[in-house]
Amino acid sequence: MKPAEILLLVFCLNLVILGVFGNPPTCPADLETGCGDSDEWKGEFFPGIPKIKYEGPSSKKALAFKWYNAEEVILGKKMKDWFRFSVAFWHTFRGTGADPFGAPTKYWPWEDGTNSVAMAKRRMRANFEFIEKLGVDWWCFHDRDIAPDGNTLEETNSNLDEVVELAKELQGSKIRPLWGTAQLFLHPRYMHGGATSSELGVYAFAAAQVKKAIEVTHYLGGENYVFWGGREGYHSLLNTDMGRELDHLARFLEAAVAYKKKIGFNGTLLIEPKPQEPTKHQYDWDAATSANFLRKYGLIGEFKLNIECNHATLSGHSCHHELETARLNGILGNIDANTGDPQIGWDTDQFLTDIAEATMVMLSVIKNGGLAPGGFNFDAKLRRESTDVEDLFIAHIGGMDTLARGLRNAAKIIEDGSLAELVRKRYESFDTELGALIEAGQADFEFLEKKALQWGEPKVPSAKQELAEMIFQSAL
Amino acid sequence: MKPAEILLLVFCLNLVILGVFGNPPTCPADLETGCGDSDEWKGEFFPGIPKIKYEGPSSKKALAFKWYNAEEVILGKKMKDWFRFSVAFWHTFRGTGADPFGAPTKYWPWEDGTNSVAMAKRRMRANFEFIEKLGVDWWCFHDRDIAPDGNTLEETNSNLDEVVELAKELQGSKIRPLWGTAQLFLHPRYMHGGATSSELGVYAFAAAQVKKAIEVTHYLGGENYVFWGGREGYHSLLNTDMGRELDHLARFLEAAVAYKKKIGFNGTLLIEPKPQEPTKHQYDWDAATSANFLRKYGLIGEFKLNIECNHATLSGHSCHHELETARLNGILGNIDANTGDPQIGWDTDQFLTDIAEATMVMLSVIKNGGLAPGGFNFDAKLRRESTDVEDLFIAHIGGMDTLARGLRNAAKIIEDGSLAELVRKRYESFDTELGALIEAGQADFEFLEKKALQWGEPKVPSAKQELAEMIFQSAL
Amino acid sequence: MKPAEILLLVFCLNLVILGVFGNPPTCPADLETGCGDSDEWKGEFFPGIPKIKYEGPSSKKALAFKWYNAEEVILGKKMKDWFRFSVAFWHTFRGTGADPFGAPTKYWPWEDGTNSVAMAKRRMRANFEFIEKLGVDWWCFHDRDIAPDGNTLEETNSNLDEVVELAKELQGSKIRPLWGTAQLFLHPRYMHGGATSSELGVYAFAAAQVKKAIEVTHYLGGENYVFWGGREGYHSLLNTDMGRELDHLARFLEAAVAYKKKIGFNGTLLIEPKPQEPTKHQYDWDAATSANFLRKYGLIGEFKLNIECNHATLSGHSCHHELETARLNGILGNIDANTGDPQIGWDTDQFLTDIAEATMVMLSVIKNGGLAPGGFNFDAKLRRESTDVEDLFIAHIGGMDTLARGLRNAAKIIEDGSLAELVRKRYESFDTELGALIEAGQADFEFLEKKALQWGEPKVPSAKQELAEMIFQSAL
Amino acid sequence: MKPAEILLLVFCLNLVILGVFGNPPTCPADLETGCGDSDEWKGEFFPGIPKIKYEGPSSKKALAFKWYNAEEVILGKKMKDWFRFSVAFWHTFRGTGADPFGAPTKYWPWEDGTNSVAMAKRRMRANFEFIEKLGVDWWCFHDRDIAPDGNTLEETNSNLDEVVELAKELQGSKIRPLWGTAQLFLHPRYMHGGATSSELGVYAFAAAQVKKAIEVTHYLGGENYVFWGGREGYHSLLNTDMGRELDHLARFLEAAVAYKKKIGFNGTLLIEPKPQEPTKHQYDWDAATSANFLRKYGLIGEFKLNIECNHATLSGHSCHHELETARLNGILGNIDANTGDPQIGWDTDQFLTDIAEATMVMLSVIKNGGLAPGGFNFDAKLRRESTDVEDLFIAHIGGMDTLARGLRNAAKIIEDGSLAELVRKRYESFDTELGALIEAGQADFEFLEKKALQWGEPKVPSAKQELAEMIFQSAL
Repeated sequence: MKPAEILLLVFCLNLVILGVFGNPPTCPADLETGCGDSDEWKGEFFPGIPKIKYEGPSSKKALAFKWYNAEEVILGKKMKDWFRFSVAFWHTFRGTGADPFGAPTKYWPWEDGTNSVAMAKRRMRANFEFIEKLGVDWWCFHDRDIAPDGNTLEETNSNLDEVVELAKELQGSKIRPLWGTAQLFLHPRYMHGGATSSELGVYAFAAAQVKKAIEVTHYLGGENYVFWGGREGYHSLLNTDMGRELDHLARFLEAAVAYKKKIGFNGTLLIEPKPQEPTKHQYDWDAATSANFLRKYGLIGEFKLNIECNHATLSGHSCHHELETARLNGILGNIDANTGDPQIGWDTDQFLTDIAEATMVMLSVIKNGGLAPGGFNFDAKLRRESTDVEDLFIAHIGGMDTLARGLRNAAKIIEDGSLAELVRKRYESFDTELGALIEAGQADFEFLEKKALQWGEPKVPSAKQELAEMIFQSAL
Repeated sequence: MKPAEILLLVFCLNLVILGVFGNPPTCPADLETGCGDSDEWKGEFFPGIPKIKYEGPSSKKALAFKWYNAEEVILGKKMKDWFRFSVAFWHTFRGTGADPFGAPTKYWPWEDGTNSVAMAKRRMRANFEFIEKLGVDWWCFHDRDIAPDGNTLEETNSNLDEVVELAKELQGSKIRPLWGTAQLFLHPRYMHGGATSSELGVYAFAAAQVKKAIEVTHYLGGENYVFWGGREGYHSLLNTDMGRELDHLARFLEAAVAYKKKIGFNGTLLIEPKPQEPTKHQYDWDAATSANFLRKYGLIGEFKLNIECNHATLSGHSCHHELETARLNGILGNIDANTGDPQIGWDTDQFLTDIAEATMVMLSVIKNGGLAPGGFNFDAKLRRESTDVEDLFIAHIGGMDTLARGLRNAAKIIEDGSLAELVRKRYESFDTELGALIEAGQADFEFLEKKALQWGEPKVPSAKQELAEMIFQSAL
Repeated sequence: MKPAEILLLVFCLNLVILGVFGNPPTCPADLETGCGDSDEWKGEFFPGIPKIKYEGPSSKKALAFKWYNAEEVILGKKMKDWFRFSVAFWHTFRGTGADPFGAPTKYWPWEDGTNSVAMAKRRMRANFEFIEKLGVDWWCFHDRDIAPDGNTLEETNSNLDEVVELAKELQGSKIRPLWGTAQLFLHPRYMHGGATSSELGVYAFAAAQVKKAIEVTHYLGGENYVFWGGREGYHSLLNTDMGRELDHLARFLEAAVAYKKKIGFNGTLLIEPKPQEPTKHQYDWDAATSANFLRKYGLIGEFKLNIECNHATLSGHSCHHELETARLNGILGNIDANTGDPQIGWDTDQFLTDIAEATMVMLSVIKNGGLAPGGFNFDAKLRRESTDVEDLFIAHIGGMDTLARGLRNAAKIIEDGSLAELVRKRYESFDTELGALIEAGQADFEFLEKKALQWGEPKVPSAKQELAEMIFQSAL
Repeated sequence: MKPAEILLLVFCLNLVILGVFGNPPTCPADLETGCGDSDEWKGEFFPGIPKIKYEGPSSKKALAFKWYNAEEVILGKKMKDWFRFSVAFWHTFRGTGADPFGAPTKYWPWEDGTNSVAMAKRRMRANFEFIEKLGVDWWCFHDRDIAPDGNTLEETNSNLDEVVELAKELQGSKIRPLWGTAQLFLHPRYMHGGATSSELGVYAFAAAQVKKAIEVTHYLGGENYVFWGGREGYHSLLNTDMGRELDHLARFLEAAVAYKKKIGFNGTLLIEPKPQEPTKHQYDWDAATSANFLRKYGLIGEFKLNIECNHATLSGHSCHHELETARLNGILGNIDANTGDPQIGWDTDQFLTDIAEATMVMLSVIKNGGLAPGGFNFDAKLRRESTDVEDLFIAHIGGMDTLARGLRNAAKIIEDGSLAELVRKRYESFDTELGALIEAGQADFEFLEKKALQWGEPKVPSAKQELAEMIFQSAL
């Protein structure tokens, strides 16, 4: 059996995943004809689903925005410019519903069961119809989710080029990648990591793959490029040389910076922290850990962070905390908008539906003056049991509306001013001559001791947390 | 394309899982010839691996037992009879190394990439060679991991019968299933559960599948039958009628009890608690939750529990606690011997290597008078990155040696007696006439108040936890 | 030094806690005169704080209700009757702000630093002024937080009687205890538990204390009596006889039931589940564990549960889950209205401010037909750093408004009907003749197998979780 | 009432803590005479407890070392020099057994119930008898746990000086502080933090206190000075200016560095990471977070870390991970030897009894070439229910023996060499000319791509984790 034949035969792909059942449960009727090498598809991918419109909070329609009104100006900026919403190609078009205990559940009508280049192109057309109907201007992708592996790296790259060419055409003048990235975790060659693999050959392969992924991101007009540390981490310290692996990671990122500059790619390089999963310890654990790494290796000026809310909570922090930590370190670059389940210890990548959390997220974003050239990427997926095509739209609309409510609430809080005033007052003892001295690093211990002796017991007022919570909640 | 052709073509199975790369990374050289319909395999599956022998603690060999000595008598019973170790077919022979972020990594030499009946039979031969070389007497299986789905339930059952027939032959007179079970979670039809699916048709299908699985377990001489509640649970209460689902589960289990009796299967029915994963809330959350369910629906006499250590810790309890809870409720039936990672919030199903935990487990098992007709099933899997055939042996040997150390330590603790004496002394105020009165329910509040008034302030001695820990640790 | 002198001298109480600083940081000016044996207090305890009124959502006042409107009718019942809000005496009047790392921070003006009976009575007056200004009708108490220990149990009981007498007078015709309880955890005698102490003398002492606490709850017209299992649990299984302790607990609760009936107390006995803290394992871990205990010992008809939201999340469940579990077991009796921090692993007892959680709580309460004779007790405390008297009001108002929003939202969801319809439709395959057969326990495995063979592969529709979340969120 | 009188009367201190019972449960008989201003104590503090000796693993004595043999040489260094064990004054001599739900349980015979300077001095004598009987050479202290607060800072400092003078005398020529520190969390003035308090007066007070604490540590010959960020953190971001607080913290630490140098203190300054508790977010969350802070503010050369195992696990890491992270950042300075409970979400500060964990800790320490001038401080406390004087010894002996076993095991692993060899082999593809190029930062993406194209699919061997675990476990 030759590779070419294998390629031909893999149409059984999604149907047989995990190898347990031989009978596709909802095999598309037209499977045979669908298996051509054409990427054509008659008519719409989402027939019956109109362009999603804003209808306001009183609307009862599932397929309408109730709070997200793209052109509406909030705090001096259009909603769409605050958010720069992006569709994540992998979850939306490659999510199968498979989980560690179950086979795929989703059989979208445009899928023919193969992973061919023709299928990849058809899928790309679906992506752009989805984007346009949803009314957003950005998309994000991993190299391997938009085009299939070939038998060699050359062939793989050529597959990618072919699909990228179509994507460029379909993007038109309006749509761009918010970011691209390389998938360095799915293929078994990356089982020990990419840049931190114990195998030199894998390190080189990963470099070649990232090189190409940066190129195509650049070619498509992408504004950022993301490093999510897929399997850069360890399962056990007993068999791992963590120091050496971290050094390799730094060398790898330095090479990425050099290459980006060489080809004139001006997009932002982003690191996406995650504490665990798939490894026990991911090297980019959280915002502070990532910042420490960047500082240690002199890379702090070259990278920003892509904060994902579900990753934040898995690391023991609120999403708000991670955003603020990134912001205060000067490296808040992008948000992967999703949420986890507060009782679940793995990445559930749910669409955000918590209005309070969305409001806190937007308070940080506003403080940051927005995220551009970053934005909000919906790194979120349908639940495994959500199998209707319309569920894809409902989930995105829910997420966009939730964040829109967050923005509206945050604006209310800022315009009202009483929360900011509460905070300002808490620290007003430092808004003094002496405070300025301390903050300038000019108050030494002997000076301060003199003051302490002179003043006696300091007065310490209430922190008014319940009042702050009341003010916050009243804006929701 | 017809189902029969699909069956023929699924040889690409494990190679293309998750549909992202078209090129099998380590395609076995003889794939084509391997793809026949024969289950033959020349020579041994594990050439070069001898029958594993006990060599004692000073041995440096990876492929030798250092603490597990099957025939050695500990506390009046042979080690093998304390443990009744069982190999889990699914992890050992169907584990691919795939995880939510990665394709399979394991390509055992006997696999031909298909999920055919011939392959299933060849795999079954490998299973029994493994069991014999490891020197255990039991194995456990899910129906669908030993034989492939067919196009219809009849065909599926017939596939199963064919493989079961071979298994029966290979079992010989010595080897038996510790238990069998039905896989009600992998197939998309079970995405909302089996017995608790919102679809009546799925409930019926699950019933048919469990009926058959009980039959084949009985036929093979299995001593137990397990219900792990795969997807019996919920992701969100917003779209779930939990009360109705729990009632359905009870009806289903009642029907299983009735059928078991009807066919004369005397094995124990076991429920395996797990708190989460794949669902947010699994109905059999932990031992106490399962016991409450059984009591509520009048099933407490018909079921015991299969306690899995990794499930225990995911539910916020120590494994020792879950064993003791099951034991005190009179329903400790079997142990799924594995362990989780204390810092990880999902089921890692690792082989137990913690001697202290193993010792506590064995203290419970000894108090229970052993587990028979239950035993220790290795519901544990190789790490995704462990890809040598010998790793399968190393992992099992490690698990068996760890539990053997646990048994030896527990015996030391019991023979020494000082820990038991410490506990006895703590409660000795109840080993009195008055204590007997209280324990018999004959001391009412008025009587006790009189005593309290008469005695004044009670003396409360130290709990001596550090001393208990010292005694315990000294035995390790 | 005699006990009487000690009593006289303990005025330094709150000021010196943890024994580290000899100088009370904010010693009330009139400490000396305050230290009389009189419970008099000139004028109001909360001067400047008016009776809290409903002003509607547009109000910016901290000291006004924005959503809680006591007399407004929602779904056929007044808001105040849905909630039956109760002030928790211990948090509100005995909370000092101390934590494991810090001394008290709160020095309410009416406190004189002592734990005298006079002080207890003055505090009780403050309590009723607070209750009336807040506009609620219920309060909850532990015996020892309303009156001080004496030198003997007789003296302690007599202290309690004196304070209870005053409370009865201050209650007037309108205010009643929602519930009373005995504090079996603070005093060192209870360090190994009360009913589960290893010391018989402590068991008797606890019985005497509970006997008295039930009596005074009854005397005050309390409608429930709560058992929170303070230290009924274990730290280590190595030094614990869990089986014996659980048996003792059952005997103790049986005696409580008998005594309650003997004295004609018709209030509901409630168990309050908590998973951990102070012990590693509390015997009343969660709702299901508590139900199992009650069933095992034949007590299920005699007790209901008091579900606390923070305890729910500490046990790995959502509050909604615990309420539904209690409801489906027929034992939902009361709610301790609070919340934890999703990133914190201990009981923070915060006032609930999450509108979505409040809405889910109220959906359960409505399904339960309300909670009476139970209600909502604010088992919640000011943050340690909130030290203004008005913070006590702000916190309660915030909690009441949040729950009121929850009720309003839940009513909207119910009146709209689309969420209920979504759930009904999911299960409609069971609303059939065959479904009725299954639910009546009349469909055996053979019958079901026949059906499964006849029907072939079942169709499994989408679970529509995202749509359910959208409908839910739109009501907030 | 005057401050002086208050001081006189606080003898009721520990007896009345938390203000709930007026009757000291086990009031020492000679309380009155004990209340003098003398620090005399007749005879030994620990009569009947001999100097603890090494008796070897076969000893059954609780009061003997079974593995810790101070003078025995392991890997070229005496055991005592590997460990540099230190007794933590606060847990051992100021631990009362109080917890958030309970009053103190420990009434050591030498305590008179006061917090007087005389009592402080008597307690110091007990400390040194304890240290000598245990056979260690170091101790650690917070300023406020060795001497009581006075009415003014001057008085407080003078109290401290008086006690420190005695400590210096009792230290003799052999015993020294491993480190000193300032208690900036217990007193209510620090409720919003010390260096990060919102109040300038508190910042100054904290500076004065740290100044003094550094001075006395220096005076006593201390080798390190620790900053544990007590309340340097936040409870809610809604009322917190995190950026400003972090800046203040940096200014504060800069001033500490300057002062240390000014007075010629050559000890190491240590930061002790902790993720949470008492605040929701402690600014020194974990090793990486602390390193990032130090780097951001240019302090990385001036500080090392004091890693506490219980803090490590609370932050989601293994202790081993935190040690390695500190080591790889060049800042591993000291270990707070304790452990948490794997199922508990707060700091339990238990004595380490896990041999496997101890072995991993020692593997890191050995890689670090030891910890000097740091060491192992027993930041661990008796369980609340352990109330015998001998329990203090048993707990320390248990901890020392556990770590000694860890050292012996680690030495075995190192001497055996097979684990190190397994790791070396995993990375040997980098021990090549090309690997050297990559590690020197001289392999750019274009070069690597060329290699990848030339080599084709890389070979990826097994990670052998189970084998590594087997080798590790065999050494225990």
